[in-house]
Amino acid sequence: MRQAGRSLPEYKAVRGPGTILNAIADPARSIEITLQPVRRYGVDAAILYSDIVVPVHAIGFGVTIEPGIGPVVADPFTSAADLDRLPDLDPEVHTPYVLETVRGLVAELDVPLIGFAGAPFTVASYLVEGGPSKNHERTKALMHGDPQLWAALLDRLADIAIASLRSQVLAGASAVQLFDSWAGALHPRAYQRHVLPASQKVLAAVADLGVPRLHFGVGTSELLPLMRDAGADVVGIDFRTQLGAARDRLGPNTAVQGNLDPAIVLADWPVVKAEAQAVLDDNGGRPGHIFNLGHGVLPQTNPDTLGRLVDFVHSAPPITEQ
Amino acid sequence: MRQAGRSLPEYKAVRGPGTILNAIADPARSIEITLQPVRRYGVDAAILYSDIVVPVHAIGFGVTIEPGIGPVVADPFTSAADLDRLPDLDPEVHTPYVLETVRGLVAELDVPLIGFAGAPFTVASYLVEGGPSKNHERTKALMHGDPQLWAALLDRLADIAIASLRSQVLAGASAVQLFDSWAGALHPRAYQRHVLPASQKVLAAVADLGVPRLHFGVGTSELLPLMRDAGADVVGIDFRTQLGAARDRLGPNTAVQGNLDPAIVLADWPVVKAEAQAVLDDNGGRPGHIFNLGHGVLPQTNPDTLGRLVDFVHSAPPITEQ
Repeated sequence: MRQAGRSLPEYKAVRGPGTILNAIADPARSIEITLQPVRRYGVDAAILYSDIVVPVHAIGFGVTIEPGIGPVVADPFTSAADLDRLPDLDPEVHTPYVLETVRGLVAELDVPLIGFAGAPFTVASYLVEGGPSKNHERTKALMHGDPQLWAALLDRLADIAIASLRSQVLAGASAVQLFDSWAGALHPRAYQRHVLPASQKVLAAVADLGVPRLHFGVGTSELLPLMRDAGADVVGIDFRTQLGAARDRLGPNTAVQGNLDPAIVLADWPVVKAEAQAVLDDNGGRPGHIFNLGHGVLPQTNPDTLGRLVDFVHSAPPITEQ
Repeated sequence: MRQAGRSLPEYKAVRGPGTILNAIADPARSIEITLQPVRRYGVDAAILYSDIVVPVHAIGFGVTIEPGIGPVVADPFTSAADLDRLPDLDPEVHTPYVLETVRGLVAELDVPLIGFAGAPFTVASYLVEGGPSKNHERTKALMHGDPQLWAALLDRLADIAIASLRSQVLAGASAVQLFDSWAGALHPRAYQRHVLPASQKVLAAVADLGVPRLHFGVGTSELLPLMRDAGADVVGIDFRTQLGAARDRLGPNTAVQGNLDPAIVLADWPVVKAEAQAVLDDNGGRPGHIFNLGHGVLPQTNPDTLGRLVDFVHSAPPITEQ
């Protein structure tokens, strides 16, 4: 459950001052923060405490994360000259703290650690818009208006994501997730033509490492087969798509992750339990379902409810290969 | 094209002071504003200048529209006692200005006038959240936590929508659109159980009037057949779904409206033209396609580009019944 730890009292106790980028740059804190939800909930995997803009921040593009806003870029990407502001990522040089965190976690964890990177499209959307965006006007204007420059930008960001993911796996991460959070803002044709090639490059470039590759975005019901074709072993299903319908569309060789609506978890336990059971029923006992929320945990979520949810899912009858 | 007029210079010249509710309450201004995009672009229908919260505002629930924010409710809906704040809408008493606007427009227009109402779910989301919401936490909490009260709220809002739509048609509107703007925030199961019955009630209650019933929401790709089953003759397709795929899902007896991405219209004309052609190609000559944007016109849109787009669509080969 992504961001499951960020509303916990123990998180607030160690988070410290500054932006999230400061906490991420401190391996001791990042290790503790990554461990907190695993310790409290007993979930089956840990997800690295980091952010999708860490690599572009670290290579000096000029990205900060403003509390309550998100990633902010003082000098957005507008022209070919800005490509020079996206040099190769050397993880040992630019993000040694991420690797130190990964190594420290792998030494402590009894469950797999999931590393991650931002997909080229979603990272590009922050660099081009200058921050979070409702309609992604500038991003789409660049994509459609100057497809060559757009492709060059996404290719640079693909290389950066590749370097980041490879370094995380070589440091010990057991799986990687490619977050294309805002891909759901795109028509399938735009995704296929202007986004898929770069995501495909990223996922192909980590195939030799032999770890599961997860791929997730919000509002992507129309893109699921394309996100699978990008090279994903596991496709995240947000809460807008019935899980069984998603599985039918993806076929038996693709696992899924999802898809309880995070807003449901704010309800009383009987409601949460019934809806969690409905998600399990939607999957219908098919192998390859990672139970999860369909998006990040909402800040006002009661940790006790999340704990009961984990226990409930763990108590469900095991699925046997058919 | 919804809100096509709201970025025009001639709109800014007549819009006047106060909130949009003030302009809507002035038939002379509302008539002029409704006519402006028809006059400038030569589109095939006019859509009434109004807002989905006009009826709940008019019956005194305490709804305002803040510029740059949207509908705001000072005292949100929280309990059964609040149902008393939603009396029956008597359009001649509560919204005589809407009917005066409709009558004035019908006298002047050479094209059909589309009236509209907010669907019970989307209006309820404003009343419960107190304003626009990213995650609709309170709305979903009420829906799932107190389904009886939720159903009672939606039933009240259905009655209000029915009264509003019937009065608009009886005043001369040639079609009605039910805007369920935020329905796409729901899992199909939640939509079917907690939203569909009320929307079905609305659309059934205007069936005898014999006017086409349009039904639209954003991010609703997984809900399209359910939105059809609610009683729609025309289902709006936002820009996230390939139009041909939507038509396959809806079947030959349901018309569609859509679905060019409004962000595309910000690009240079060759891009806009190619993407508009792609939408026409997606439809593949099937009867029952109303070309439109997949969501409202973005404020920074160049009116000249919209004009060229209308001309381009009008110049496309006519579709003959097959």
